[in-house]
Amino acid sequence: MFARLRVLGIDPGLTRCGYAVVDGRGPTSVRAVSMGVVRTPASDPLPTRLGALRAEFTAMIAEFEPDVVAVEQVFFQVNVRTAMSVGQASGLALAEAALAGCEVIQYTPNQIKDAVAGWGGADKAQVQKMVQVRLELSSLPKPADAADAAAVALCHHATSPLGRQIRQAATR
Amino acid sequence: MFARLRVLGIDPGLTRCGYAVVDGRGPTSVRAVSMGVVRTPASDPLPTRLGALRAEFTAMIAEFEPDVVAVEQVFFQVNVRTAMSVGQASGLALAEAALAGCEVIQYTPNQIKDAVAGWGGADKAQVQKMVQVRLELSSLPKPADAADAAAVALCHHATSPLGRQIRQAATR
Repeated sequence: MFARLRVLGIDPGLTRCGYAVVDGRGPTSVRAVSMGVVRTPASDPLPTRLGALRAEFTAMIAEFEPDVVAVEQVFFQVNVRTAMSVGQASGLALAEAALAGCEVIQYTPNQIKDAVAGWGGADKAQVQKMVQVRLELSSLPKPADAADAAAVALCHHATSPLGRQIRQAATR
Repeated sequence: MFARLRVLGIDPGLTRCGYAVVDGRGPTSVRAVSMGVVRTPASDPLPTRLGALRAEFTAMIAEFEPDVVAVEQVFFQVNVRTAMSVGQASGLALAEAALAGCEVIQYTPNQIKDAVAGWGGADKAQVQKMVQVRLELSSLPKPADAADAAAVALCHHATSPLGRQIRQAATR
């Protein structure tokens, strides 16, 4: 009875950028449409790599026509250079999604882990396992970046207004 | 006798992004074609602002057809949030320039000040003044972001292989 909501989840990165298209009809009925990783060679100049990634985002959004693009939010970490390139990759995704007229939302790593694995401190393996269970995949989703992107998309399905209602009802 | 080289200089930023189109026929003959600032309202969501900026870069490159896009390189500063948004703005410019087939180069703030004002420690007012002199403008270039973008473009003209030869000959 629910309209289909298509979410493109993105785990931003320059060397490896995970993406996953997850359809939902209500927060408990979800299905993976596509999952993968976009890579850009570290040997290419930075502008070439960013250009290639931008073109991939444009093509991906045109092909899958998501209603929502959900992007993992970048925080500054130990490696400043990595944080910058991840930030630039996420900026390209946010810009293309907005220009395509999608709803665009960023989720923090803790929000994603909490929504998918039940607590914000979950490790990568636990998140991967929960993505497998929730999407009813026959094996663990690989590579890890694609699984992370699927977790971002699942986070949106779980934390949409309706998802919140159901989670709250379940814990009453 | 020199072919015209058109450089689009960009001083990246999300709230204010300076741009300047500077033509050169050899490094000592330069001319401003266009200068300005793209603004995105701080009240808009981040994806909307990045999308608007991306669309402006695309339109700017299509209109002026630069041979080279020169972008001021971003470093991490005191304000981490600002550094991230400046990095994302620069990433959009680098990506669009690469996709349009332009030569794309980043210059550090010190390289720019050194090339335009003669030393890397020059302050903003000195750079602005030198931009006015070199481009033979009747008044100081404003706003400051547009002048900074012109300095980036002038830096490329001055530090191109031919520019380096002339500078070296002059200091011998």
